Amino acid sequence: MTATDELDLNLLLADTETEISRVVANRDASTVGVYEMIRYHLGLDGSEGPRGKRMRPLLGLLAYASIAGDHHAALPGAAAVELGHNFSLVHDDIEDGDVERRHRPTLWSIHGVPQAINTGDLIFSLSRVALHRLTDLGFSDAKVLRLMRLYDETCVMLCEGQYIDIATSAQGEPMTVELYFDMIGRKTAALISASIEAGALLATDDEEVISAYRRFGWSLGVAFQLNDDLLGIWGLEQKTGKVPTDVVRHKQTLPVLYAFEHATPADRARLAELYKTDDLNETRVAEVVAILERAGAADFTRSEAQRHRDQCLAELAGLTVIGPKAHEKLTGIITAVISA
Amino acid sequence: MTATDELDLNLLLADTETEISRVVANRDASTVGVYEMIRYHLGLDGSEGPRGKRMRPLLGLLAYASIAGDHHAALPGAAAVELGHNFSLVHDDIEDGDVERRHRPTLWSIHGVPQAINTGDLIFSLSRVALHRLTDLGFSDAKVLRLMRLYDETCVMLCEGQYIDIATSAQGEPMTVELYFDMIGRKTAALISASIEAGALLATDDEEVISAYRRFGWSLGVAFQLNDDLLGIWGLEQKTGKVPTDVVRHKQTLPVLYAFEHATPADRARLAELYKTDDLNETRVAEVVAILERAGAADFTRSEAQRHRDQCLAELAGLTVIGPKAHEKLTGIITAVISA
Repeated sequence: MTATDELDLNLLLADTETEISRVVANRDASTVGVYEMIRYHLGLDGSEGPRGKRMRPLLGLLAYASIAGDHHAALPGAAAVELGHNFSLVHDDIEDGDVERRHRPTLWSIHGVPQAINTGDLIFSLSRVALHRLTDLGFSDAKVLRLMRLYDETCVMLCEGQYIDIATSAQGEPMTVELYFDMIGRKTAALISASIEAGALLATDDEEVISAYRRFGWSLGVAFQLNDDLLGIWGLEQKTGKVPTDVVRHKQTLPVLYAFEHATPADRARLAELYKTDDLNETRVAEVVAILERAGAADFTRSEAQRHRDQCLAELAGLTVIGPKAHEKLTGIITAVISA
Repeated sequence: MTATDELDLNLLLADTETEISRVVANRDASTVGVYEMIRYHLGLDGSEGPRGKRMRPLLGLLAYASIAGDHHAALPGAAAVELGHNFSLVHDDIEDGDVERRHRPTLWSIHGVPQAINTGDLIFSLSRVALHRLTDLGFSDAKVLRLMRLYDETCVMLCEGQYIDIATSAQGEPMTVELYFDMIGRKTAALISASIEAGALLATDDEEVISAYRRFGWSLGVAFQLNDDLLGIWGLEQKTGKVPTDVVRHKQTLPVLYAFEHATPADRARLAELYKTDDLNETRVAEVVAILERAGAADFTRSEAQRHRDQCLAELAGLTVIGPKAHEKLTGIITAVISA
């Protein structure tokens, strides 16, 4: 198998699914049920429904292969970040009261909150178990430990970001734009960045290269989130496959927070009033969107997304270790996840 | 400081609190709130209320010191197991709907379910971060990795045990005595055993010694749980400081499950009927207890607890590496936690 074949995204995806499936396989007769729940959540239960995009593992595998030429040895890391991401989704669904994810009922809505909390905890534990296979694949103990330290600190950031999110949602007042960037750094950029940094640090000992991949991943993560914020309000259903629902769901994403800081006093007051209404019907959503646009929130968010995307592309261009094939794939992913 | 001073339990306890406090200290201005919640749950918020007994870290430190003579280097492991135990308590309180723990309101009852789930997740993440300080204290990467593997597999078992607990509680039928032993092995014995095994493996490379400590810990864990089952039904308030509430709370502990298997058909039917009553008042509790006693459930549970305690003491007696002082302390703990 040549290095070119290695970077076929479908192959990377298939290998990732195999690796994850191995980690979440049944262990004992008395605990089959909880592993079934995990496989259901992950879309690995044989159903036809859409799975997650597996963006984090793919980025990690590409980062690794861009230096090492082959992706196989990094698969345990890929499985770990995807499981880590999914433990947080299972808990987020409970915390947000969401009854559906990827067009299927969420775990808690089927099995109840207690079972779903515990299943999330098990997915978290298994994400750690996944990493130990790196040792079996020949990585040095020092390397594996360093990766674990990165993963553990990233999980801390993830929970810190979620804390800020829940705490500010519970308050009456919108958070500041500054705190928002703090929050999405922890909640979104940290894990995307860590996935890419992990791929790099498994492939090289060169600290400058590892740092460059980390910066690349951080900019990508922020750009990804801001792009999501744009799509959540201005996304076209025919392009994204879903109706934008962030306003209906009262989500306080960057455009909304920016408007709270920069709209005219009258618009600000009206926005606050609208966001306090339980039923944000179509007319009211349109009114919110008009206020955001008048405040320049769409332009600001788009320019911030582009700034981080450009920073990310610039980091990528500066990565001299990277082969042309990997460069093309990574650029492809960046363009695919950041469309707005 | 001599080895004798080292084994002063109050000193071990104080050092454990310091180590945990370091791990759960504030990090950034924007996330102080979540660390306050953690310290509240742990009783490290300056309040006078009773903290946990810290049984797991003490056992781990004693196991380590019993071989190494000093406990200090094992403190990060002690902090990790206590934090791991407490992450599960925070989530258990939500899962069981318990509004009080150690005479204080539980986290979820103050801050809501979403914040409490996430705070539990952060405690879990921090328990991993705690372990990395072992590297700073000079343990080899191989040793730290092995400890992490033990910890990760133990967390998997913990969640598996909790799954069985929730799944069987949701069913109408009581679980079998056999499944109950499977469950408490995962839910209780695994972490107690791992705490002790961790102490041993940090102190020695001798696999036979490590295995002996693990077996010692496993028997202790099972005995501890069965003792708890006895106290939850037959405990005297003047001795334990709490009224036995297991029957009122419809808990299906070993005595109840044994009676479901061994009582007369008439008693079994009545027991099932009583356990379906929402309001288990004093008269009904007395009737339940009478059925359990007639079935020999108290005797069976006591003899099982004693059998595991004796096995545990026999393992302890066989540990030739252990000093007399450590032997005395460990025996003291065994006697203290297993009183029934």
